[in-house]
Amino acid sequence: MKIKVSQKELNKCINIVQKAITSKTTLPILNGILLEAENDVLKLTGTDLEIGIESKINCEVIEEGSIVIASRLFGDIIRKLPDLEVEIVTDEDNNVHITCGNSKFNIIGQPSVEYPQLPVVNDDISLNIPKDLLKSMIKQTIFAAAQDEIKPILTGALLEVNNKKATLVALDGYRLAVKEISVNSDNNIKVVIPSKTLNEVSRILDDDDSDVIIMFTSSHVLFDFGETVIISRLLEGEFINYRDIIRNEYKSRVKVNTKSIQESIERASLLAREGKNNLVKFTISDEKMTISSNSEIGNVYEELPIDLEGNDIKIAFNSKYMLDALRVIDNEEIIMDFESNVKPCIMRPYEDNSYTYLVLPVRLNENY
Amino acid sequence: MKIKVSQKELNKCINIVQKAITSKTTLPILNGILLEAENDVLKLTGTDLEIGIESKINCEVIEEGSIVIASRLFGDIIRKLPDLEVEIVTDEDNNVHITCGNSKFNIIGQPSVEYPQLPVVNDDISLNIPKDLLKSMIKQTIFAAAQDEIKPILTGALLEVNNKKATLVALDGYRLAVKEISVNSDNNIKVVIPSKTLNEVSRILDDDDSDVIIMFTSSHVLFDFGETVIISRLLEGEFINYRDIIRNEYKSRVKVNTKSIQESIERASLLAREGKNNLVKFTISDEKMTISSNSEIGNVYEELPIDLEGNDIKIAFNSKYMLDALRVIDNEEIIMDFESNVKPCIMRPYEDNSYTYLVLPVRLNENY
Repeated sequence: MKIKVSQKELNKCINIVQKAITSKTTLPILNGILLEAENDVLKLTGTDLEIGIESKINCEVIEEGSIVIASRLFGDIIRKLPDLEVEIVTDEDNNVHITCGNSKFNIIGQPSVEYPQLPVVNDDISLNIPKDLLKSMIKQTIFAAAQDEIKPILTGALLEVNNKKATLVALDGYRLAVKEISVNSDNNIKVVIPSKTLNEVSRILDDDDSDVIIMFTSSHVLFDFGETVIISRLLEGEFINYRDIIRNEYKSRVKVNTKSIQESIERASLLAREGKNNLVKFTISDEKMTISSNSEIGNVYEELPIDLEGNDIKIAFNSKYMLDALRVIDNEEIIMDFESNVKPCIMRPYEDNSYTYLVLPVRLNENY
Repeated sequence: MKIKVSQKELNKCINIVQKAITSKTTLPILNGILLEAENDVLKLTGTDLEIGIESKINCEVIEEGSIVIASRLFGDIIRKLPDLEVEIVTDEDNNVHITCGNSKFNIIGQPSVEYPQLPVVNDDISLNIPKDLLKSMIKQTIFAAAQDEIKPILTGALLEVNNKKATLVALDGYRLAVKEISVNSDNNIKVVIPSKTLNEVSRILDDDDSDVIIMFTSSHVLFDFGETVIISRLLEGEFINYRDIIRNEYKSRVKVNTKSIQESIERASLLAREGKNNLVKFTISDEKMTISSNSEIGNVYEELPIDLEGNDIKIAFNSKYMLDALRVIDNEEIIMDFESNVKPCIMRPYEDNSYTYLVLPVRLNENY
């Protein structure tokens, strides 16, 4: 292999594929980045076998070929090189010669035949979503996925496509986040994508409105960003039927400013944190919401103006669960629906049904 | 105590005094910030008994008094409050009532009588140094102070003032950094200031050229920034006579671009790091310096144009010790003086004798 490639572009590509590489792997070759040079294109690949990332750069390929180079060292070398053309040459003993400006590195590579092949995902079943929309779908839901592995399926998010709607759903038994958007697809899709994959997808996504193409097989999903492709295993198993959980009735409906309630809960949670239970109490009555919390070291009261439709209610929540959602809602106001202090609260942006967040209350004894 | 104070200014002051507070203290009251309100000034104090920081704000003092409040909680509360006036009221049971906007906190304080008094340092012996100059003095020397406690005196930096010169010196047995500036003082001062103190001073220092007033007793030093004051213990003991170590003779003198040699050593050190010894070799001959390093995974060669006066030389260094100094030299070019490959290298900015850095080489066996 012999190529000449821009330091800047190579550095960018390495940063992207490194996101799939973990130092915890038991297969040493996975600590490396696979370089494949062919037809004036250099393709870089990184994988941990769960998730694989490929990224391509146009460059001058003088001699085609491939090699695996230690990811961290290679990344550090390229990053520290000057913004010039980098020449990479391999010999038959898998030595890699990297030359740029007055710098010359010789490092030992590994033969590419030992590198595992990423699964093939073709475009038989596919879906186009604008990048910025996919990014906000992921941001508004993924935090609600389970962190522990008690029910492995809940560590992922359900992506459902039917009737020209795409829905992303995550839940962990305490709260549930659902985001729905319109898509131009007649496919029926129902897959569960690992959180880690969606987080990496979200990090690579730009904020522009060009399309990502998502392709599916029964076991894998592929996100095609153009120069970069992410391939991931899907999670196996049946996701919880979340539609049954979301009710539309309420006995109390509150309209409140998103930023005000977020800031009040953040302050109240400072004392909730001292109490180690994150417990924050809400007292909702005509035109006023009081948020309070207490611990051994003290207590806090916050007052907020609200619009209330229906009954007064006293209810308590884990402040973290409330804040996770409030931080990802961009709308100025939210609606909170309550049925009783032992039933979940349902939050939605005001006049916007595309996002639904459901959170279970914490039961308090009567005298608390 | 009853005061009204700006949230923004209070927040800023808390951030400053918190730098002196450690959570590792064995004296619980030192986890708190001392608030003292008197004559329309609120004074905040934090200390770990080694170092103390006081910071003052003008505010409305309705009732004078003092209290100690848990540092982390108080800081978090004030930071999260809106940018409005904060009212702080204490009662006779040491409860603290903090009100701002629609937020009301009640937290338990501690009586201020239990808080230790900071030592008194008066201005009998004092020294004025422009802030930006003091900041660069600290930045260029403090990294060379010893990290371990084998010789406790070397964990500090020597400040010497005589003949209208102020010199700051740090050394750890492998390298030595000296910065000298002119000062308008007839005092003779020789003290050793803990690194930690100088690091905190450097963090608080603005980049402007107004003066810091530094005052001394036999056991303490005080840095007066105006609104903020840092008081620190001095280290006891005799500092090494560093002047004897710095020679002025050389057999080889190299002039080289600071940024180029820094970047070359940084790249070479990527392989030195793999070899776990940070060893980087320099081959200096007419008009050319080669920097190289090797480890099991490969090797690297860097070539740099230089001006050489005197003999060719081959010499090796710990790359970290070279980089620490190169990163804090702002001048475009440096001079490196060598005598032999077992004697220290002396580095100075080109045409600037205010800064001297001396570093010991690593001895190599002949065949290496």
